[in-house]
Amino acid sequence: MERSFLAYLRGRCQSLRQVPVGIGDDAAVLDPPIGRQVLCTDQIIDGVDFRSDEQSLADVGYKSMAINLSDIAAMGAVPVAALVTLSLPKTNATRIAGEVYEGILQAAGQFDVAIAGGDLSTYEGPLALSVTMTGDVHGGEPWLRSGAKEGDAVLVSGAVGGSLLGRHLRPTPRIELAGRLRRLATVNAAIDVSDGLSLDLDRLLAASRVGAELDVDQIPIHEDAVARSRQTGLTPFQHAWSDGEDFELIVTMSPDDADRVLRCKELSVPMTRIGTVTGRTGLWKKSTGKVERLSPQGYQH
Amino acid sequence: MERSFLAYLRGRCQSLRQVPVGIGDDAAVLDPPIGRQVLCTDQIIDGVDFRSDEQSLADVGYKSMAINLSDIAAMGAVPVAALVTLSLPKTNATRIAGEVYEGILQAAGQFDVAIAGGDLSTYEGPLALSVTMTGDVHGGEPWLRSGAKEGDAVLVSGAVGGSLLGRHLRPTPRIELAGRLRRLATVNAAIDVSDGLSLDLDRLLAASRVGAELDVDQIPIHEDAVARSRQTGLTPFQHAWSDGEDFELIVTMSPDDADRVLRCKELSVPMTRIGTVTGRTGLWKKSTGKVERLSPQGYQH
Repeated sequence: MERSFLAYLRGRCQSLRQVPVGIGDDAAVLDPPIGRQVLCTDQIIDGVDFRSDEQSLADVGYKSMAINLSDIAAMGAVPVAALVTLSLPKTNATRIAGEVYEGILQAAGQFDVAIAGGDLSTYEGPLALSVTMTGDVHGGEPWLRSGAKEGDAVLVSGAVGGSLLGRHLRPTPRIELAGRLRRLATVNAAIDVSDGLSLDLDRLLAASRVGAELDVDQIPIHEDAVARSRQTGLTPFQHAWSDGEDFELIVTMSPDDADRVLRCKELSVPMTRIGTVTGRTGLWKKSTGKVERLSPQGYQH
Repeated sequence: MERSFLAYLRGRCQSLRQVPVGIGDDAAVLDPPIGRQVLCTDQIIDGVDFRSDEQSLADVGYKSMAINLSDIAAMGAVPVAALVTLSLPKTNATRIAGEVYEGILQAAGQFDVAIAGGDLSTYEGPLALSVTMTGDVHGGEPWLRSGAKEGDAVLVSGAVGGSLLGRHLRPTPRIELAGRLRRLATVNAAIDVSDGLSLDLDRLLAASRVGAELDVDQIPIHEDAVARSRQTGLTPFQHAWSDGEDFELIVTMSPDDADRVLRCKELSVPMTRIGTVTGRTGLWKKSTGKVERLSPQGYQH
């Protein structure tokens, strides 16, 4: 299967000027990035991270790219090249690979990523997709989790919660937003919301050895969180607080930079300030007169 | 499992100055290479590419790195960073990951590669290891399969055949040799012998749209090919011609450069000239008076 399918793929795969040699040699060749490079990988497996009997395979392929694109965005980078490794069940391997690649190529085209190589195997196991992606910061500094400073404003993009109602199938990685934020502000720290707003924020704060005081009423609750709460009996806030797979960005920056971002009318998705970084570690609820500790929740791998 | 094991790994993983941010953020951060970068990925799966009931898991981990290192060597590059994705059977996942990582870390230390990230999953399936690796050519040009020129000498490193007797478990990627060759000569084309000397040479020639006339008596037959021939009834030459997993390098260069390489006493492994690139495509046997077409053989995925 591999040889003919590779020939087909080579014809269809997105190519880019920055990737002078893609599929077909011992390795791909990339032009050097301007400044530092970011490099991430994420794998999804049938029965663990998705269910092929409930989702279209094109969606699964799209998602394998989107979760990596979201990591690239969370580093403040622009994606360049992806390597795609598929482990395919022996039965219907070529059909499955073809359907999965529909989504992969769609994401590659939409976000201007070259498919520069990969590997294909058939085996006695479930469909697994592993994508590795490179990104450039064009001479700037990558956004780390560890850069949040006391006094920073904490902002989140879009609205969160209830992604399980369908948004998780075709998440929108915030590549364009990250580029805009980089031009508008100095982002001190960033992470994407993959496992839950509070859990991922807590990870960012822990990496920065700081905490945050949150204005919980400001957390932008997605309408899907409201709809989902009618199914689950949890509150919309609880869904916004702990649901995963939103793939929004959490960023911290100086209050002045935050004001400039919040005034900007040209963001592809709105940003909301939800709190302030504090020297005291942990998540805290901002309210008049008393201080209440909040417990981060979300999807633990 | 993932969190505690990741913490353990983070402590043990090889780090390098060129990789300022490794495991633990949304992506790794690499200093930019000098000139072009090479990027490869290869996956091995239990029951397909190895058998965990017959091999030590440390060997399997080592091999997952070595096959990628061999691709980096075949591009004439120096390895920099690796991302390691493991899919682990649910039973004994942590023990398996620990044993596999012994070999991965050994290869990383030996060849000075940073383990810059990766992914770990447990699932209902066989052990699978997918490694992605970056390499630098330090401002030079990567060696492609497609650069062979009519009149080039064809050289192979070491001796080939019979790797199944045990060499395939702990292959030696020719990183050091590639560096030496780069300093001695202009390599026009290169490939590593993963699927068989004749098959991989044929791939190089096809990518270059040329052929080669081989002095078949010069092909360096490994002693393991002789030993193996006593088990299989094939000739030692047949094993040298078609056995895979030697991970030696095939390179082409001008005859003058080849002479310089062949005279060099400081190669980590000897090089042998086995033929000459011709304008006529295909593999041909050089002999007095007549011309005989040779058929490439090896392991077809």
